[in-house]
Amino acid sequence: MIMVTPVIRTVDLRSDTVTKPTESMRSAMANAEVDDDVLGNDPTAVILEREVAEIAGKEAAMFVPSGTMGNLISVLVHCDERGSEVILGDDSHIHIYENGGVSSLGGVHPRTVKNEEDGTMEISSIEAAVRSPKGDLHYPVTKLICLENTQANCGGRCLPIEYIDKVGELAKKHGLKLHIDGARLFNASVALGVPVRRIVQAADSVSICLSKGIGAPVGSVIVGSKSFITKARWLRKTLGGGMRQIGVLCAAALVALRENVAKLEDDHKKAKILAEGLNRIERLKVDVAAVETNIIYVDLPKDPKFGAEDACKSLEVLSVLVIPQTTFRIRIVLHHQISDSDLDYVLSCFEKLFSSVPEEKA
Amino acid sequence: MIMVTPVIRTVDLRSDTVTKPTESMRSAMANAEVDDDVLGNDPTAVILEREVAEIAGKEAAMFVPSGTMGNLISVLVHCDERGSEVILGDDSHIHIYENGGVSSLGGVHPRTVKNEEDGTMEISSIEAAVRSPKGDLHYPVTKLICLENTQANCGGRCLPIEYIDKVGELAKKHGLKLHIDGARLFNASVALGVPVRRIVQAADSVSICLSKGIGAPVGSVIVGSKSFITKARWLRKTLGGGMRQIGVLCAAALVALRENVAKLEDDHKKAKILAEGLNRIERLKVDVAAVETNIIYVDLPKDPKFGAEDACKSLEVLSVLVIPQTTFRIRIVLHHQISDSDLDYVLSCFEKLFSSVPEEKA
Amino acid sequence: MIMVTPVIRTVDLRSDTVTKPTESMRSAMANAEVDDDVLGNDPTAVILEREVAEIAGKEAAMFVPSGTMGNLISVLVHCDERGSEVILGDDSHIHIYENGGVSSLGGVHPRTVKNEEDGTMEISSIEAAVRSPKGDLHYPVTKLICLENTQANCGGRCLPIEYIDKVGELAKKHGLKLHIDGARLFNASVALGVPVRRIVQAADSVSICLSKGIGAPVGSVIVGSKSFITKARWLRKTLGGGMRQIGVLCAAALVALRENVAKLEDDHKKAKILAEGLNRIERLKVDVAAVETNIIYVDLPKDPKFGAEDACKSLEVLSVLVIPQTTFRIRIVLHHQISDSDLDYVLSCFEKLFSSVPEEKA
Amino acid sequence: MIMVTPVIRTVDLRSDTVTKPTESMRSAMANAEVDDDVLGNDPTAVILEREVAEIAGKEAAMFVPSGTMGNLISVLVHCDERGSEVILGDDSHIHIYENGGVSSLGGVHPRTVKNEEDGTMEISSIEAAVRSPKGDLHYPVTKLICLENTQANCGGRCLPIEYIDKVGELAKKHGLKLHIDGARLFNASVALGVPVRRIVQAADSVSICLSKGIGAPVGSVIVGSKSFITKARWLRKTLGGGMRQIGVLCAAALVALRENVAKLEDDHKKAKILAEGLNRIERLKVDVAAVETNIIYVDLPKDPKFGAEDACKSLEVLSVLVIPQTTFRIRIVLHHQISDSDLDYVLSCFEKLFSSVPEEKA
Repeated sequence: MIMVTPVIRTVDLRSDTVTKPTESMRSAMANAEVDDDVLGNDPTAVILEREVAEIAGKEAAMFVPSGTMGNLISVLVHCDERGSEVILGDDSHIHIYENGGVSSLGGVHPRTVKNEEDGTMEISSIEAAVRSPKGDLHYPVTKLICLENTQANCGGRCLPIEYIDKVGELAKKHGLKLHIDGARLFNASVALGVPVRRIVQAADSVSICLSKGIGAPVGSVIVGSKSFITKARWLRKTLGGGMRQIGVLCAAALVALRENVAKLEDDHKKAKILAEGLNRIERLKVDVAAVETNIIYVDLPKDPKFGAEDACKSLEVLSVLVIPQTTFRIRIVLHHQISDSDLDYVLSCFEKLFSSVPEEKA
Repeated sequence: MIMVTPVIRTVDLRSDTVTKPTESMRSAMANAEVDDDVLGNDPTAVILEREVAEIAGKEAAMFVPSGTMGNLISVLVHCDERGSEVILGDDSHIHIYENGGVSSLGGVHPRTVKNEEDGTMEISSIEAAVRSPKGDLHYPVTKLICLENTQANCGGRCLPIEYIDKVGELAKKHGLKLHIDGARLFNASVALGVPVRRIVQAADSVSICLSKGIGAPVGSVIVGSKSFITKARWLRKTLGGGMRQIGVLCAAALVALRENVAKLEDDHKKAKILAEGLNRIERLKVDVAAVETNIIYVDLPKDPKFGAEDACKSLEVLSVLVIPQTTFRIRIVLHHQISDSDLDYVLSCFEKLFSSVPEEKA
Repeated sequence: MIMVTPVIRTVDLRSDTVTKPTESMRSAMANAEVDDDVLGNDPTAVILEREVAEIAGKEAAMFVPSGTMGNLISVLVHCDERGSEVILGDDSHIHIYENGGVSSLGGVHPRTVKNEEDGTMEISSIEAAVRSPKGDLHYPVTKLICLENTQANCGGRCLPIEYIDKVGELAKKHGLKLHIDGARLFNASVALGVPVRRIVQAADSVSICLSKGIGAPVGSVIVGSKSFITKARWLRKTLGGGMRQIGVLCAAALVALRENVAKLEDDHKKAKILAEGLNRIERLKVDVAAVETNIIYVDLPKDPKFGAEDACKSLEVLSVLVIPQTTFRIRIVLHHQISDSDLDYVLSCFEKLFSSVPEEKA
Repeated sequence: MIMVTPVIRTVDLRSDTVTKPTESMRSAMANAEVDDDVLGNDPTAVILEREVAEIAGKEAAMFVPSGTMGNLISVLVHCDERGSEVILGDDSHIHIYENGGVSSLGGVHPRTVKNEEDGTMEISSIEAAVRSPKGDLHYPVTKLICLENTQANCGGRCLPIEYIDKVGELAKKHGLKLHIDGARLFNASVALGVPVRRIVQAADSVSICLSKGIGAPVGSVIVGSKSFITKARWLRKTLGGGMRQIGVLCAAALVALRENVAKLEDDHKKAKILAEGLNRIERLKVDVAAVETNIIYVDLPKDPKFGAEDACKSLEVLSVLVIPQTTFRIRIVLHHQISDSDLDYVLSCFEKLFSSVPEEKA
């Protein structure tokens, strides 16, 4: 039996949202130039918004307190008329994890299309779901298609550029808009070696999270045309996302943007290494080839007495935090505050739990 | 080549909603005892509601102008709190053909589960979709499961009693309500030889259409507990479905209820005969065994030059009205105003169009 | 003390919605030509809609099951974008008696302006409330002004033509639409001796009730431009107001339209006579000059032991049905099924209750 | 003529939201202990929330990005069922300046009552507006009364404690909740010399702004019962107000709370001085007695050629920023970053513009 000495430091792999602000972010916050961003514009917000718009190749941008608000505003701007319908993946973050806000607050009707394992939806299935322009008395009107890249619930895999372009063409053909939930768009960009602006070229709007892999304490930015952002500003105020001296948050986000995108490559390498290590453990299974960015799915043996929830609890005792994805699958998310020795430690913990036949059956 | 003499009379098989009121209905309307059903209760409405409640084995009932309003009210009563979610079939009438009203007007978030060909959803898939009670910050709260029986988009097949009961148990286990869209519930009852009240035993509410197979000119009735109907009355008023002297409509509906349920068996027999006849036509295909009630799906040869839309237009020229279900599938719906000679005529029209190799290729 | 022998027949003055269909209406219903108004158009509905559009001088019309739905659809069509605001009277039927449907179902924000006793709102107050076009981050966008003519809660008085025209000009100046809730529009037309089409000349849409003074059993019609009605049809279906063989209702409504508008003058005369009679009763007060149409407000002595609710109950014992308007005010509404002898009887009942000092104090 | 040398520094009196974070706030942000407040709780947020709950005498508290979100969540939690109505002031911030979000996003129907000059609404008018419990088919159901203290649009005057208590009693009597929009609650507390917890004793929930007078860069806190806050957390996530490492904002807010409440007394003194000074200017009028906290209304001469908008522009040229309240009224708001010399300068600017007969007429 392998001896594991619990470390004092917790290794938090629940999400890439758990990172703490770095020293340079803290310093930036302390020195940020600020102003009331409701009565006018905060100068640091202006810089951040310009910089993200540039990265994404869109006309304009707006800071929002969360990715959820970024997506909600984007869907609601595109679906501004009563009776609008959005087509989106049945396993997408917007559909599954955002409280149904597009319907409950916005009255938008979601029409889901099956997400394949890689996060794509079949183009023909999307087209079959389109109901537009308004013409039949029985139908809502499709206004929008949403993609997610990388998709949290699909192992963080990158959507192929050609695929996104094709969805964009389909959208155009039917007079629809295309929104991309870019919660982990920088991961896709780094993994594919393709600039963000090329990836989202076909999109009318994108929500880009700054508090995930690149480690800003708070915030996302949405990008799109000037008129999209004008409408978005009104909706942000309506939702209560209009904040005063947001330069303090934007300053940290600017540091994240400038210093941390490059670190993502390292996260992906670590994810690969950890995935391979876990896959070598006798009773675990990881589809290593599917680990394209910073997310790993670990399939456990189907032991009803020791499923993913139990395993997560046992790992927590050992100061390793991970999340059950399904009954027998654990999700692990890498980020820039995970070290090589953390990886070793995590592997040793999994080995302890899964390297041999369960004791009770021995 | 077969000669077809166009009849003057149109054979309308688009839906069972197209029937005209019978003489006895017209007489009933002319003699109906009525009162203001908004300030109090219309006496004929009271009789109709009592009779339908009795048939369905529920405490109370309420007349509504349409099945769409019946479903909308039912979903909204069960999902009365902001953030509610309903689980329903991805090919159900509520999800596909009711304008997304549950979301656009009611803010209810729909979570769809795949409809099998027979209209069922896998029990395990329903259970996997349940998110209740409120506990996770990311989730809406499941409040309701909807079934449709018979399901329009699934060939009018009857849900097995045991299946409905199991869904009812699942609902109870998770503290959910069960609503049945009984647009064609009488067809299911007649086809199965099982009383309506037994079929909907597990349901908390049912919407029963009177203007489909049984031929009332206007109206549906929803049934449920007294407290359900009390809330439903308030919502009906809100939606603008509160009407004054509705006894005139309820009188006709009472005739439909008392005289026409028995006629459905004949509709089903005719549907079987027509299905068999169509299936004998060389280039057509009908799954005759799947014709359990009054709906027939006719699969056409996959000729991009003569799909379902084209066929429907050609049939219309011959005074036969049917509707394209998909690109190469036609839907036919029987009702009590279709005669044996209508059937012969319809068959002859289809034969004309599909009995041999298309002329152009000959 | 005056002896009153209770009549068997109830004199129902609660509203002009309580009338029963006449023989000619019943006959029309029994013989109506009908068709499925959801799959296509019911021929009798087409005739009714054309006739009402003509009367109102608008391009198009649509039958709806109730005035509430007519108003709801109209407001929602004009306020089709998220963040719309409607300006309306603080004592208007839409604001007070329609369950807040424009907000709860439609998400429209109501901005109320004080209703004067005659149902008008000060033009300057309306203008001060306008917030349009979208420009300030803090404001919803005004899209619509609503008037009500005659206004139920303002004694059924007629809005002056010049007043309506001025509101129309104001609306145009600010790019707003004008909707008129014409629940009792025919009463205004008859009382003023001005055709309906002139009264609503400035309006973009009007909801005209057929089941009030003119006595149709069920229904209202909304009128407006063709594009307004196209959108309205979609919304009617969404709300569940799309009905099948509505010719049976439209046939009765056509009779109401053709035969009963002329009877309103008689209602107004009877209202005047009754108002004068009631005002002569020692302890009652009626502003006879304000009785311009078929509604009478009777002010009771401010006796906390015998307010309007008590009086209504006592009158009900005598088979006279009226409604408390406020704590010490009763509302009486005349209609074509009230006879001269009914008036005498009603007067005698009021006299019994109010002609002398209350017995207890005597 | 008085010579005014424009200062380089702008004197920003548009609102008390314009303050910049102090050095101690910046230092606190840089050193804040933080964690992911979505996956768990940020430790600094926990401290802030506990401290505000204690100040307000309520069980629990939650940080929100803005007062608008604080109010929106509070109204929506109390009005969680479809068909809810809120009673609030016709000049309240929620009704006028929050985009109609309670209706457009929440479907809540607002019923307004006239705000008197001091921000109160007549108790009898509030009671007359109550429609609860659900009983009439025509009414929404009143669930909530909202007060605002101090009320922005009513000159920042303090609601009397007894008044708030009475509204609380009324709410209790009718089974309603009471929410207080405490955007400037600390100002009321300091001006009255009454602890916050006493002021809001009768309230079920309060939204307390930290980025107004006390100068935090971002944020408000809402307080209430534990179950209120549990529901509020879910709604905050739905709206997109769930943020990650919010300790950076909460640390600054804690400094504001601990260091800046005491400074409000000085703001009020300065407001009084400025008010008196302005009132001494020949052509200006200020109701000095009504200046109870940090807001001043300056009434200009009713010169259509030089109204409030023009005056604000002229003052802006002199580097003094103020806001037009109405056509001939300017609003001035004091805060802790306004010095005595700023006051002198502002007075001199107003004198320049308003001390004598306008030049053109001279």
